[in-house]
Formats: sequence, structure tokens, C-alpha cells
Amino acid sequence: MRAARYYDRHDIRIEEIEEPQLKPGHVAIDVAWCGICGTDLHEYLEGPIFVPPHGHPHPISGEDAPVTMGHEFSGTVTEVGEGVEGLAPGQKVVVEPYIISDEVDIENTQEYHLTENMNFIGLGGRGGGLSEKIVVESRWVHPVPDSLELDQAALIEPLAVGHHAFVRSRAKAGDVAIVGGAGPIGLLTAAVLRAEGLTVYISEISEARKAKARETGVADEVFDPREVDVAEEVRRRTDGRGADVGFECSSVEVVLDMLIDALRPAGVLVNVSIWGHKPAVDMPTLVLKEIELVGTIGYAHDHRRVIELVEQGKVDLAPFITGRIGLDELVSKGFDELINNNESHVKILVDPRA
Amino acid sequence: MRAARYYDRHDIRIEEIEEPQLKPGHVAIDVAWCGICGTDLHEYLEGPIFVPPHGHPHPISGEDAPVTMGHEFSGTVTEVGEGVEGLAPGQKVVVEPYIISDEVDIENTQEYHLTENMNFIGLGGRGGGLSEKIVVESRWVHPVPDSLELDQAALIEPLAVGHHAFVRSRAKAGDVAIVGGAGPIGLLTAAVLRAEGLTVYISEISEARKAKARETGVADEVFDPREVDVAEEVRRRTDGRGADVGFECSSVEVVLDMLIDALRPAGVLVNVSIWGHKPAVDMPTLVLKEIELVGTIGYAHDHRRVIELVEQGKVDLAPFITGRIGLDELVSKGFDELINNNESHVKILVDPRA
Repeated sequence: MRAARYYDRHDIRIEEIEEPQLKPGHVAIDVAWCGICGTDLHEYLEGPIFVPPHGHPHPISGEDAPVTMGHEFSGTVTEVGEGVEGLAPGQKVVVEPYIISDEVDIENTQEYHLTENMNFIGLGGRGGGLSEKIVVESRWVHPVPDSLELDQAALIEPLAVGHHAFVRSRAKAGDVAIVGGAGPIGLLTAAVLRAEGLTVYISEISEARKAKARETGVADEVFDPREVDVAEEVRRRTDGRGADVGFECSSVEVVLDMLIDALRPAGVLVNVSIWGHKPAVDMPTLVLKEIELVGTIGYAHDHRRVIELVEQGKVDLAPFITGRIGLDELVSKGFDELINNNESHVKILVDPRA
Repeated sequence: MRAARYYDRHDIRIEEIEEPQLKPGHVAIDVAWCGICGTDLHEYLEGPIFVPPHGHPHPISGEDAPVTMGHEFSGTVTEVGEGVEGLAPGQKVVVEPYIISDEVDIENTQEYHLTENMNFIGLGGRGGGLSEKIVVESRWVHPVPDSLELDQAALIEPLAVGHHAFVRSRAKAGDVAIVGGAGPIGLLTAAVLRAEGLTVYISEISEARKAKARETGVADEVFDPREVDVAEEVRRRTDGRGADVGFECSSVEVVLDMLIDALRPAGVLVNVSIWGHKPAVDMPTLVLKEIELVGTIGYAHDHRRVIELVEQGKVDLAPFITGRIGLDELVSKGFDELINNNESHVKILVDPRA
């Protein structure tokens, strides 16, 4: 079968590889669609980061580069291994793409994603969604309703990232949120917040992203910090109080400052973005307002609720799909397109059979 | 009566002023001892910060400089105003030195200290502990047991700062804490943590402060980061896991980095220190470990528990008193001593009658 394999920085190859073999407790899946993640782009441009370099196998997967890429994918079950219950051929599924030690009992571990040597399927080994087929441990396979289109289902994974950020914020329906940055994760986080009953304000400077935030309906209002004092606007709409929760989705220091400013006393700021450096944090204000700055990574126990939100129509994932390409076009129309036209895209999907 | 009055930076005068008059709902107190706080020193060297400058009266107290200083004090009730219950002449007391709007119902407000224009008695007006007498609203007056010496009682206020930091950390008995910095607030925070049943490690480089941390018994171990990798030592003592909670009490960036490193995944870091700038924060690690960085300021609903800890003998405040001076010596043997010999002191107490 064909697969996109990561060899090294700027070296991703579409190759013919062996089909994976079904094992007990595992599920064989025909991949339908796989999204390109910002993390994939980072591996391509600056990696290997999550990918275990050649000669340094990952302690859990035992694999090193080259590895098959792709962790945001949907597909259909073709076969289930011995002992697998609740899944059958023909079932539409998504995968929670973790590589976590077998010793971790994920049902009874709140933060299984923070265990030692955690990595991701599609980065740290165990195949990936950028190939025609994959075999995955059944504990990571989540059924999705037959009514959900598989292209939209491929966005369940990044939506789970947004949902986990929401959970980390401890926000509830009726709260007011300010989201800094309307890139893919900012928009999907906003979509979860709206679905969970929050009032959502977004701050963004890119014209294309402002338009997308408006057109997808994920925000009550979209502010441009070059035009208005965003923190002041948020206060004006909350009787001078400020937002209950903030979400940093831009990796930009002035946005971090603005969010701390826009929060009410004892508000919670979730950092959803990935920083390449140590940003300066407005600690004096964080202290005086008793703000909590909270890290979030991936997801844990989020997929069930996320699938429910999509199934109930509370999140419509269709408007976030901004491109569809074949596997051969992964670099030319995928990575290169994201490098050159990043702001006009939310999610580019890859059909590994095309 | 005599009082220490703050006029401006480097201008504190010991003056003869009018005695304050008792009012309904208020309590008249003869001050016994008043501690010098780091905040007082900041006002002296770099202020006015909390003090309302001359011509700019505070919105709640209506006062501006000169104001009487001192907010860490104990004393004895001499008279109670109309309507005051539960307090009588002769009662030993401490004051929770807030200036907060009368409209705030402090019994039913969790975070009354984060309300608008909050300030402190002894900085923002309403008299201060660096004078012979003070009249305070009864809601801020806390009785202390007759068995508690009034010199030690003057340390209840900074101990409440440490207790509030503990509450903000959501730690519990049996947890492991790492405290960065053994200045007055670091030591008193450590004292609360030990009293609440935590294992406490302290990181400190000053010889005098390391000695004080060891001699007061507030730490299970004191590490010098010039001698050992503190985060590594903490992990070695926690089966590789890391500390549950950390307390930044140094305003030093490398200490902040060390604390984030020393925490377990999903650990909580409370910033107790005051920063004069925006420090760089190790956000990449904060994100990957889902650390929570929490601001804390002052106290709210902490005094009762703090007095209980002292009454039960779980915190012995005597070893933290490192100097006793008269009011006339406030600058020469108080501020100047703290400027020149800061590391050998924890708390210098002032007797406003001497």
C-alpha cells in the first residue's frame, strides 16, 4: 500500500510499503481522510521533534524514522482482532492517536496523556493516517455515527484538542470566553466553547481568518486589535468585569498580554498554542488578579463528548475543510500550500487512495 | 500620639498626630508590635506604589499621602464602638488590614480581596500599625488567644499570605512541595505547608537564609542550586515523579524555570513573589506537563485557620523574629538594616511606644 513516510526534515516520501497485519486486541481500518496538522508542518520544517530520529527508536513503539505520518484521520473498520468488542467491519471510526504504555489503564487514569514517553500514532510510529490502511489497538478506536461524513470526522481529533482546552479552563455554560488567534486550533476551540454554551469573543488580525471566524459562526464577535482595544471591548460587554476564561491560540506575546488584561479577577487563561521560545508573561497582573495560566496538550477522555457535540449538530465541521488533495500532492499542495497561504486555510484533508 | 508617616519615596517621618476617634462598628486598639514588610520597603525605596500620592486620594479611604504606615500588627482592644459584638476591651487581636468597599459583603464573597480599588490599611490610609493607636472596622479584627504572645501575633498577617498561597495551590496533606526562595514569605509559606502536613523542600542560595530554613525546621530538606540540580533531587525523592506543588518566592527567572522543571505533570505552581518586570516563562514545558501557574495576592478567609495553626502549636512564629526596634529607629535600624543586611533577617518588629 502507499504511505507518506517521514525520513527527516524536508524529506517526506510517498512510498509503497507492506500492509499492516491484524493482531489480537487490534482493529484494521481503511483510512478515508487524514488532515494535515500544524505539528506535521513543524516536523517537516524543523523536525524531527516528535518523530524518533533514525537510530533512536521510541521507547514504547520501538520504531524510528522513517515512520508513516498522519494523526488526524477517519476511516472504516475492515476487520477486528481476537478479543475486540463493540466494533465490527463497516463501522465508521476515528482514532485517538496515542502511543502510551500498555501498563497505563486509560479507563482509570485521568491524565493518561501525561504519562512517560507519550507520543502520537503518525509521529512516533505505529503507522499513520497518511496511508491506505492502519491497524490500531482497539482502546484508541472511537465509533462515529453512520450519519457523519468521514471527511468531517477527520476533524474530530483537532476538535478534541479544543475540547480539552475547554475542560482545562473549568468554564461552564453562560461564561464569557476570549480567544486569541483564529488559526485552526483557535477556531475549533471557539466552536467547542459556543457548543458548550459560552459567549465567545475572538481577537485576530488576519483578514482571511477574521472572515473565516465570522463565516463559521463560532464567535459572538470578532475584534481586530489594530482597530480596537480588545480587553476594553470585552470589559464593556461584561459590565466592566472581564472575561471568565481566555484561550491563547496565537503564540504571540502581545496576545498573551491582552488576554491577561481581558480576564476578570480569578479568571483562567488556557495556553493552547505551541511556543518555540519562553515568552515574557505579565506576572504582575497575573498576581494582582489571581489569574491561573493553565497548560493543555492533546486530549484525554474528550473524544466521546466531542463526537456527541458533532452528532447533536452543535458543531458543524464542514466549513473548516478548506482543501482536499491526494497523497502524491502532500508536499506540493499540502505543506507548501500551508507555508505560502497559511491564513486562507483551516484544514487540508488528504485522501490516501487518491 | 506618635506615628510613622509616609510622605514620599525616602521621606518617612515620625510625627505627633491626633489620636483616632472611635466610631460605631469600629474597634479601638492599642498597637503592641508591628512588623516591617517588604512592601513597606518597596514604598520607601521605589514608591509611592500602594500609597495614594498627595493630591490623589484613594477612592475608598478618601486619603492621600501623608498616611500612617504599618499593616502587620497586633494589639489589645481598648474600646468597642456601638453595634460591635464578640470583642471587648482587653482582648488580644490582629487586624486583617484591608481597605475594601463597604458594599462588599465579605462573609459571602469568596474573593473579596480582588474587588475594585482594594488597598491596605497602613498603605492606602485608615491609620496603620506603626502608630500607638488605631481604630478599625470590626469586620477586619480577629481575636487571638490570650496564650499567644503579641510579638508573635504580629506575624499572623504574613503567615496568612503563605496560607493563602497554600489554599491557591489546592495541595493537601501528604503532598510534596518545593519552595523557591527562603526570604520571609518563602519561610512562612513553608511553615504553613509543613503545618498542613506536606513534605517541604526549599531551594535557596544565601547561606544566612539556608541556615534560617534549617534552624526553623520548616523544610524536610534545603537544597542549594549551586551545589545540586534541585529538580533532579526532588524527582529522586518522589520516585521520579516530581513535586505536586511549587511556590515561587524569589522573583528570579531561573528559580521559576527550576520550579516548572521540578513539578510533576499536572502540578500547580503558585507565584507568591512580586515581580518588577515580565519574566520569561518556560511555556513549552508548562504546556507539555499541563502545569498550572497560579497568581496569589494577600489573603481572604485565611486568618481564622492561620490563628488556629499557631494556637495548636503547628507553627511556632518565635524563630522568625530577628529584630526589635522602637518607632524612632524605623529608618535607621529598620529600613536601612533591611537594605544592608537583608539576608540575615526574617522579620523586624517595631514597638510604636518605644
